[in-house]
Amino acid sequence: MTAAPLFELLHQELKIVNIGVPSFSETLTAVNAPHVHVHWHPPAGGNVAAVQTLESLERHAEILRAANERAVAKILAARPVVVDVQPARDVVPGMNDRILLHAGPPVTWEKMCGPVRGAVIGAIIFEGWAETVEEAEALAASGAVKLEPNHHHSAVGPMAGLTSPSMQVFVVENQEAGNRAYVNMNEGLGKVLRFGANSPEVLERLAWMRDVLGPALGAAIRHVGGLDVKSLIARALQMGDECHNRNAAGTSLLVRSLFSALVEVVPVQQLTEVADFLGRNDHFFLNLSMAACKVTMDAARNIEGSSVVTAMARNGTEFGIQLSGTGDQWFTAPSPVIDALFFPGYGPDDAAPDLGDSCITETMGIGGFAMAAAPAIVQFVGGNAGDALNFTKEMRNITLAEEKTFGIPALDFAGTPTGIDAMLVVDTGIQPVINTGVAHREPGVGQVGAGISRAPMECFIKALKALDERLAASAR
Amino acid sequence: MTAAPLFELLHQELKIVNIGVPSFSETLTAVNAPHVHVHWHPPAGGNVAAVQTLESLERHAEILRAANERAVAKILAARPVVVDVQPARDVVPGMNDRILLHAGPPVTWEKMCGPVRGAVIGAIIFEGWAETVEEAEALAASGAVKLEPNHHHSAVGPMAGLTSPSMQVFVVENQEAGNRAYVNMNEGLGKVLRFGANSPEVLERLAWMRDVLGPALGAAIRHVGGLDVKSLIARALQMGDECHNRNAAGTSLLVRSLFSALVEVVPVQQLTEVADFLGRNDHFFLNLSMAACKVTMDAARNIEGSSVVTAMARNGTEFGIQLSGTGDQWFTAPSPVIDALFFPGYGPDDAAPDLGDSCITETMGIGGFAMAAAPAIVQFVGGNAGDALNFTKEMRNITLAEEKTFGIPALDFAGTPTGIDAMLVVDTGIQPVINTGVAHREPGVGQVGAGISRAPMECFIKALKALDERLAASAR
Repeated sequence: MTAAPLFELLHQELKIVNIGVPSFSETLTAVNAPHVHVHWHPPAGGNVAAVQTLESLERHAEILRAANERAVAKILAARPVVVDVQPARDVVPGMNDRILLHAGPPVTWEKMCGPVRGAVIGAIIFEGWAETVEEAEALAASGAVKLEPNHHHSAVGPMAGLTSPSMQVFVVENQEAGNRAYVNMNEGLGKVLRFGANSPEVLERLAWMRDVLGPALGAAIRHVGGLDVKSLIARALQMGDECHNRNAAGTSLLVRSLFSALVEVVPVQQLTEVADFLGRNDHFFLNLSMAACKVTMDAARNIEGSSVVTAMARNGTEFGIQLSGTGDQWFTAPSPVIDALFFPGYGPDDAAPDLGDSCITETMGIGGFAMAAAPAIVQFVGGNAGDALNFTKEMRNITLAEEKTFGIPALDFAGTPTGIDAMLVVDTGIQPVINTGVAHREPGVGQVGAGISRAPMECFIKALKALDERLAASAR
Repeated sequence: MTAAPLFELLHQELKIVNIGVPSFSETLTAVNAPHVHVHWHPPAGGNVAAVQTLESLERHAEILRAANERAVAKILAARPVVVDVQPARDVVPGMNDRILLHAGPPVTWEKMCGPVRGAVIGAIIFEGWAETVEEAEALAASGAVKLEPNHHHSAVGPMAGLTSPSMQVFVVENQEAGNRAYVNMNEGLGKVLRFGANSPEVLERLAWMRDVLGPALGAAIRHVGGLDVKSLIARALQMGDECHNRNAAGTSLLVRSLFSALVEVVPVQQLTEVADFLGRNDHFFLNLSMAACKVTMDAARNIEGSSVVTAMARNGTEFGIQLSGTGDQWFTAPSPVIDALFFPGYGPDDAAPDLGDSCITETMGIGGFAMAAAPAIVQFVGGNAGDALNFTKEMRNITLAEEKTFGIPALDFAGTPTGIDAMLVVDTGIQPVINTGVAHREPGVGQVGAGISRAPMECFIKALKALDERLAASAR
């Protein structure tokens, strides 16, 4: 039966339209009463204060629209290129001191979750500021080591996200806007600092990364005159990565792009170690993807009146977001629990809450927002290929633009949804989706699963309130 | 409106069922007459002789079923591993003479198409059997150089498929059945022998591949103790390749798998050249994919009574297939014209007919059969992501099994359709789909486009007739 006669039949019989509550529709269906059900829900989930904020912001609709257009233009125009690898202390602003950077919004030592504490202890020993775990704990608790968010230093880091002064960091430059972002290098899986492990093997690996891997990659990257990370991401998205939880293609493309240069500039015995390390770590590209997203989103910061989200980040205690129009202010809520599939032997009780700066990828519109590019991910986090398409389509409802550079094959090369508008998030009640790994709540155990989390609505409501107050103040 | 009331309405109104010819249904639709249209077509497209062959074969249904089961089991059980790279003359059976191997079924010098002639000339000069194009042509025409199909020597080659004694070939072993297959190495794009080019730059590259690339890759492959090509294909299929026309992921995975070994065993100045070559050729994995398919399908040869297709190959003049149950006999038809998208400046008049052994990939159930894994391909050959899914689904109608090792993400990890049954091809009228590059009809120009071709029905009808006669003879 084709559409035309069906329409005729429908047209003759149609008597009932049900709006909103689906249970009425279900009853009609049960008694075979022809009807049409229209999906509808109240704005802001019916939260009266949030609705009032949305209404108040409507008074500045023109300012918001223009500001958001500027923010989106900055995002789309960004050209992230990795240009170097250098010790953090030499390149990251404000790293020339006893300072450690961590993931997420600010958090005190007292409130830090297990994996971040473990990583802080590891980093203190790695830097030689203490010799034992106990000494390191005492030092951290004393306040003698500054603990600040990566995001306050144009940096990002996955999971605990610890960046210490002597670590080697990728330098990613936005060759459109001229700003730079920094990220440490991915350690691989198993016992690693970013999951809070700090045993001697972890610190030895970090030392090798500082002394061998970083200088080797830096030399190769300088030798090729920098690598266009946006182009690598675009290609990886056509090869089954979403560049957050899956980086097999990105890593292979990166290694192949640098292969020839590494051979030319790295001494042969170090080259073997580097080749072996890169050959075994399918996640190595993640950190570069993150820095590319960070440098892109930083270009859209501080546009007065813009409700575009410029950062989402978690410290395992709190989830925080920032808006372009509210500068460096954080809007936080408790870190959510992750809807996860656990590795054998682990369960929800073992999981630390949502953690890491890696959702800068979703902030820029890849990761969970590009799930349609990576149906293999849904096997890992639970779901099917259709779910993967739906996550990406759903995110179109809360974003202002399409990044056509990032064409998704399964969506006929439609671009990724980018430019999260906090207004749309609150209005539609659709929370940004995040693909993520799950850390064990105790330091040092490592990854225990992977899954999907959603950015808490509370952050967006708070952020809009602040934006509204700011706009009201500047209008006075 | 949900299914239940719709069903009620349909049930009340349903008066007409139309079977077969769609135009009746279209008329009913035009006048809004509710009806159901059932797709149906006569077997073998109504070809009476073919229908008779199918009916005659039905008498041996039990033998066919059992034989095809055995053939499919051999295909699914295959474990292709690349174990070495060696000069063809040292490893390919019957290559210790003035012999050149070409793609497709047998063809004489007189009937060879332009690109194959160009490649024969190039190979003769490369081997030092002649110095000029004219001398080489004369030698080829004289019959003093044997010209035989790759397939007669457990080998395959893309496009012209020229394999000469001193060329380095990958040695791929089926570690289940113990058989081996051979393939030369991919030269990259542009002016290359496989498209019939034979200028000095082409022959210089071939010499470098013989003297540097082949030995380097051979040493690395031996160093790692062989590489599981089936596993590389499985991973590449999850990364947007279909391992015939798109090999970006397979190539990157291969390079990354061998990176560490190459660094250990290859002298540093050669390593730079090798890295540079592999970095620039996204199709390098194709030839390995082909040899893996060849070694897999060869294991299913010579099963008495099996109608499973063990080879499809084209020499640019003819398209040929072989069945398991009819041994090394070829069943041919004129090489079809390719439904192609042409590169700027070229059109259908420039195209050579369908050419190359590369459709051994489709014979094994990847390439066009795995199009759902590589929606990016449809951009290149015309079409959308939905078409990609449909090609794979369509091929399920003519295949006997699903290769679960090759799970396709976009089909929720359903395996690739494998084990083409010539009976099903003839019965359904569905011709195997092939993704392919298009060569210029003149030697030396190179690739002018890419597109989709279909294996000619005539080959399958002829093959079934021979199988039927053979079964009838053995039953007497």
